[in-house]
Amino acid sequence: MIYQVQIKVMPLKDLLDPQGKAVLGGLHNLGMNGVSDVRVGKQITLQIEAASEGEAKAVAEEASKKLLANAVMEYFEIEVIQ
Amino acid sequence: MIYQVQIKVMPLKDLLDPQGKAVLGGLHNLGMNGVSDVRVGKQITLQIEAASEGEAKAVAEEASKKLLANAVMEYFEIEVIQ
Repeated sequence: MIYQVQIKVMPLKDLLDPQGKAVLGGLHNLGMNGVSDVRVGKQITLQIEAASEGEAKAVAEEASKKLLANAVMEYFEIEVIQ
Repeated sequence: MIYQVQIKVMPLKDLLDPQGKAVLGGLHNLGMNGVSDVRVGKQITLQIEAASEGEAKAVAEEASKKLLANAVMEYFEIEVIQ
């Protein structure tokens, strides 16, 4: 069966996020002063052929650890949609 | 009140996604052949001070249109978490 999987990769909460800071500056320049604490990460969607939801999740975890996320600076969350 | 908002910005479905293609190639090289159709987008989390959830969503939509997403190539989805 083919599962649709979403992986969210975000900068670790304890680390500075320069890209988020730049976006925050841009939003303030546009007059949106109610915005704070912007963080920018990656969103990856993929299709995984697997025998079960658990197997699809395991493949997504392997992909995240080996390629998609840098554990020193980022954490990831996996969601299997169907 | 302060709302936690997530904005997902993804390449339009009809467009090629070279970054996704590169990730797919990398995963296949790692032996993960069950993976297909990879797309890579952005995930932005931000805090918005607003009087209501609707107002927070409106601010997030304005931010997406004016700064975060390029409507020619990307679409966005907004989720207000609390």
